[in-house]
Amino acid sequence: MKQRINVVLREEPQEQRVIVAGWVRTRRDTGTFSFLEVNDGSCLANLQVIADSSLANYEEEIKRLNTGCSVIVTGVAKKSPAKGQNVEVHADTIEVVGWADPENYPLQKKRHSFEFLREISHLRPRTNALGAVARVRSRLAWAINSFFQERGFFQVHTPIITTSDCEGAGEMFQVTTAREAGAAKGTHEEFFGRKAGLTVSGQLQAEVYALALGNVYTFGPTFRAENSNTSRHLAEFWMIEPEMAFCDLACNMELATDMLKYVLSDVVENCSEDMALFDSFIEKGLLAKLRSVIEKDFAHLTYTEAVDKLIASKKKFEFPVKWGIDLQSEHERYLCEELFGCPLIVTDYPATIKPFYMRVNDDGKTVAAMDILVPGIGEIVGGSQREERYEVLERRMLEAGIELEEYRWYLDLRKYGSVPHAGYGLGFERLVQFVTGMANIREVIPFPRTPGFAPC
Amino acid sequence: MKQRINVVLREEPQEQRVIVAGWVRTRRDTGTFSFLEVNDGSCLANLQVIADSSLANYEEEIKRLNTGCSVIVTGVAKKSPAKGQNVEVHADTIEVVGWADPENYPLQKKRHSFEFLREISHLRPRTNALGAVARVRSRLAWAINSFFQERGFFQVHTPIITTSDCEGAGEMFQVTTAREAGAAKGTHEEFFGRKAGLTVSGQLQAEVYALALGNVYTFGPTFRAENSNTSRHLAEFWMIEPEMAFCDLACNMELATDMLKYVLSDVVENCSEDMALFDSFIEKGLLAKLRSVIEKDFAHLTYTEAVDKLIASKKKFEFPVKWGIDLQSEHERYLCEELFGCPLIVTDYPATIKPFYMRVNDDGKTVAAMDILVPGIGEIVGGSQREERYEVLERRMLEAGIELEEYRWYLDLRKYGSVPHAGYGLGFERLVQFVTGMANIREVIPFPRTPGFAPC
Repeated sequence: MKQRINVVLREEPQEQRVIVAGWVRTRRDTGTFSFLEVNDGSCLANLQVIADSSLANYEEEIKRLNTGCSVIVTGVAKKSPAKGQNVEVHADTIEVVGWADPENYPLQKKRHSFEFLREISHLRPRTNALGAVARVRSRLAWAINSFFQERGFFQVHTPIITTSDCEGAGEMFQVTTAREAGAAKGTHEEFFGRKAGLTVSGQLQAEVYALALGNVYTFGPTFRAENSNTSRHLAEFWMIEPEMAFCDLACNMELATDMLKYVLSDVVENCSEDMALFDSFIEKGLLAKLRSVIEKDFAHLTYTEAVDKLIASKKKFEFPVKWGIDLQSEHERYLCEELFGCPLIVTDYPATIKPFYMRVNDDGKTVAAMDILVPGIGEIVGGSQREERYEVLERRMLEAGIELEEYRWYLDLRKYGSVPHAGYGLGFERLVQFVTGMANIREVIPFPRTPGFAPC
Repeated sequence: MKQRINVVLREEPQEQRVIVAGWVRTRRDTGTFSFLEVNDGSCLANLQVIADSSLANYEEEIKRLNTGCSVIVTGVAKKSPAKGQNVEVHADTIEVVGWADPENYPLQKKRHSFEFLREISHLRPRTNALGAVARVRSRLAWAINSFFQERGFFQVHTPIITTSDCEGAGEMFQVTTAREAGAAKGTHEEFFGRKAGLTVSGQLQAEVYALALGNVYTFGPTFRAENSNTSRHLAEFWMIEPEMAFCDLACNMELATDMLKYVLSDVVENCSEDMALFDSFIEKGLLAKLRSVIEKDFAHLTYTEAVDKLIASKKKFEFPVKWGIDLQSEHERYLCEELFGCPLIVTDYPATIKPFYMRVNDDGKTVAAMDILVPGIGEIVGGSQREERYEVLERRMLEAGIELEEYRWYLDLRKYGSVPHAGYGLGFERLVQFVTGMANIREVIPFPRTPGFAPC
């Protein structure tokens, strides 16, 4: 029975027979045997396999093995005398399953730049760093699901193709069929009978389910057709959007804080080997940073207080600060990294810079919005209490130039059994960046989509 | 501290104080008090609340409460003398949070047709049946994640926007930007620099990760631009696609069987209240059907044996049977429902009716494909061992008229460290239909997308 290498490595070696299958990372020969480092992707560590020259295919095959070849090894697990490893396997047989011509195989033993690896996105998960990112990403997804399921939230799959949010959103991708593309727009040829696009957020539809089931969350892809070629933007990315009935801004802040601490604790505990790699080679001090976020209280101040502090700092910002502006990255970084040195929740932004669905505060000027800022990343969570008052929402929609007829369903939620409710969005790739320390967002999603780039 | 109704109902009532928040389902008045049935979506059952006429807002508000109004109740949980419930709450205060004008609110006490409810997809999760579907769907998603995570699989988010699979697939949605739509195709205006569409499957990209991490799975949306207005088709649906390195067809069959039994057991055990509703009102005998699938071995026969049995049956089929045809729904139903009366795995289909990536068997005529058929649904799982031999794959691609240049990355997986590997796709909505007994697939996804229909 084949075993995964992470299992073999953590079991006490007692001369038990094992079968493992994986890819050769390196081969080193001595006079009478060879050392093979074999990796199967179950963990960062390789399994050391000792191939004696008495093996039948030693000269013909084993001595030709190089990086990338696939093998099936049967042998005996023994205590390793080598430093830094507990187990090694003495092979009885090594079957070569697939070769990898060293003249052509792009992944050689040397270190490759992330830019280079992006060009071979079909091979890059075979490297240490990108393999570790993939494992940590998977664990983070699982931790997020666990967090919400343990709290009785229901997962809702909101639609990807949508006819909402179309108003004035030039950054939305459009969805058509080949037949349509050839025909005039607005004709009966349209597959859905009207213009449809790719969702920018599942929030509005998640509200539908929150007002039926209470506490729900989405975990799905969202899209922006923005022509932004930066290390922080993707055309396609994943979002988590919880939405809670009978919940106000304070309850929303509490949930988001608990969630962040929960998933960070989980990954620090359960991905220690991969996390140590990031801490050593990607971002020095990463683990200390994450532990501090887990342990410390998050700071909280209102937008108005934030603006006061920015002005009081007398710092020269590229974008001058006054009440009413949207906070820029430089402002967020100053507050979060220099002034507080910890995650920061900024609430109650001016209504004029926030969307129509955020609840208007009693001052009439601000809305019950919240952004959570973390060091190095900036905004990782953005949320709000939603406007639950029919008349106020209708007025805000009209002010925003929204066609009410298209959003009757959304207004209905305020007409029939309306309740205070709130929610937020967590950009999943931003979270993976924060956890792994990867500088470019293109490294933390398996197949990044950016302007001019969608190779498969 | 507010509690969810499912928690209040399962705790022993010991005169403890509770606060619950939810929506009124019904009100019934006696001389001196009213019974309110309150639901908060945490479970199917309502909580019975007793509102005494001595409450301050009894005449003015409580006696005006009707279906759909939202309330916050504080009171004392007591043992209920009524049949069929253990707990009731005697209210100290009932705050009316939101009204629902009975003249206009579309959801009244009577039963509504599923067709009618589809027209109000923003309100339908507030009904018993659709609420139960949403809870069961969420649990199934969780069970699937649990199954794979427990077995050390990594979740991979394969891309939604893709430039693969474009070849000859007229059923693919195209993705463009508003600017592009106005410009000529094939110019530099294209956002991704080339034609892009919505994925029909994450398999090819999942193979990339299986050949790096070993065992992976996807859980994401997939799309078909087919003009099929049936009870079995959606333009947007969710798929689960595991992919395993060093795995053949037998190992693939075993995993799919284990997965189906695992998730069915999980939902029967953990959603018993909702499942009882489906068993009583949607599909009589549903639970017995599911238990039989959990307990019985799945039958297994090859395509060739299936064809022999269909011919031997001497039944008159609409589509006559001979070796080489694709099995139609009527054939699958006969085999699965009449002949075997249990789930059925059919393997080794003719190469000519299956895609290029399936592994060619030694007979040269068939491929290592498998379909799992279940009673009432037909195909619920479709998978195969993948062609891992470079030359054979290249030949199959050329035969299928595929532009090799576009798939160099896919061929590379066979060039460098190729290994036998296999995987399958599970249509998530088909699974939810099978589990809930819902006849139309539009009822098992929150916001169905079908030709001419994407209202929000």
